Amino acid sequence: MERLGAGGIHIPLSTIAPATAERLAEHHAKYGVAYLASPVFGRLEAATAAKLWICVSGAAAAKELAKPIQAAIGQGVFDFGEGVASANVVKLCGNFLIASAIESLAESLTLAEKNGVDKKAVADMLGKTILACPVYQGYSKQIAEERFEPAGFRLALGLKDITLALQAATAKSMPMPVGSLLRDRWLASVAKGRENLDWTAIALSVAEDAGLKNEGPKNESVRTAGRSAD
Amino acid sequence: MERLGAGGIHIPLSTIAPATAERLAEHHAKYGVAYLASPVFGRLEAATAAKLWICVSGAAAAKELAKPIQAAIGQGVFDFGEGVASANVVKLCGNFLIASAIESLAESLTLAEKNGVDKKAVADMLGKTILACPVYQGYSKQIAEERFEPAGFRLALGLKDITLALQAATAKSMPMPVGSLLRDRWLASVAKGRENLDWTAIALSVAEDAGLKNEGPKNESVRTAGRSAD
Repeated sequence: MERLGAGGIHIPLSTIAPATAERLAEHHAKYGVAYLASPVFGRLEAATAAKLWICVSGAAAAKELAKPIQAAIGQGVFDFGEGVASANVVKLCGNFLIASAIESLAESLTLAEKNGVDKKAVADMLGKTILACPVYQGYSKQIAEERFEPAGFRLALGLKDITLALQAATAKSMPMPVGSLLRDRWLASVAKGRENLDWTAIALSVAEDAGLKNEGPKNESVRTAGRSAD
Repeated sequence: MERLGAGGIHIPLSTIAPATAERLAEHHAKYGVAYLASPVFGRLEAATAAKLWICVSGAAAAKELAKPIQAAIGQGVFDFGEGVASANVVKLCGNFLIASAIESLAESLTLAEKNGVDKKAVADMLGKTILACPVYQGYSKQIAEERFEPAGFRLALGLKDITLALQAATAKSMPMPVGSLLRDRWLASVAKGRENLDWTAIALSVAEDAGLKNEGPKNESVRTAGRSAD
């Protein structure tokens, strides 16, 4: 804070709890440092290619200061108003939807497999028709091909984000039945030693619950590999 | 069957249970009538504009016979092999994914609303970025705007399809936790008299469970209107 000093700005891109963002903004204000919640959708490759989607909220002056930096890493900025933590809420809403899509894809493709239908063909059709967007195209292919390494986004980080969404819901007395189900699924996957696999590896549990044998990586090899790819 | 006669073909487009498709195909065979499972994604407008996505499975000869008819209503045909009911399974997999997207969107947008974030802005951002596909664009807008009439697809029909997916899963001893959750959500919506609203109207229950008051249609007006828009 002291090094940034009055007139400085802090633009945190990570996925954090709205309550944490509020505490941080308060702390920054004491030092005259602007704080702008700026969680992003997209990975490191997207940042270097200036292809991130950026969500912001907070003071107008901070948004102005951040523009040149955002232009270097993002392809679009979405403004969610003055609330210091609003953009953080939006990021949790988005990651919850992605986790939910992964669980649902795993159930859907396993239903196909159990009924003797080629799940790769189903994934291919879905990605070309009703669900032709990057989230479904990428994850349905990974799940159908049972390709859970290397981790594009670590399963343990997915659990962190689902937990943050549930905390934000709980703080406002809001049940999230799918959210609760996802937490249990992700927790079970961590319990099985899959925390360092890609978060699509929860599909292994869906298949196991359906009595299917899997060719996926075994727990021990994964745990010792311990690769961090986030 | 007798009027169709030997050499005829039956190309049912509706969403039916795989077990029903198998019984129908057997019955057709007795009369020398070809049977081709051809469930579609898309509504009536899509059919008249030749924009349906068609899933087929069954005998090669039947697929050949069906081609000219399919060209008149569809923009693409996806072949899931020889299994008489495989295409029906795929249709259930797809409709389950759409129902799951609706529930998850309702939870996600309600989380935003409960945290003071404009849910229309969140829906807009999602549809332009990570979930830029028709299913999410259309349904997130409907849910954010609380626009559940007229029904594009009746809630009661959604319940039928979720139930068929669960039956196909149960027949193969496969748990579908999200599927079970969806059935309960849709059943509760029917219990509240919302069977003739659009199936996105399950979002009313999500909001009610979160203690939010809704401006949506009241049960009685809906029940007496009884509009069927499927």
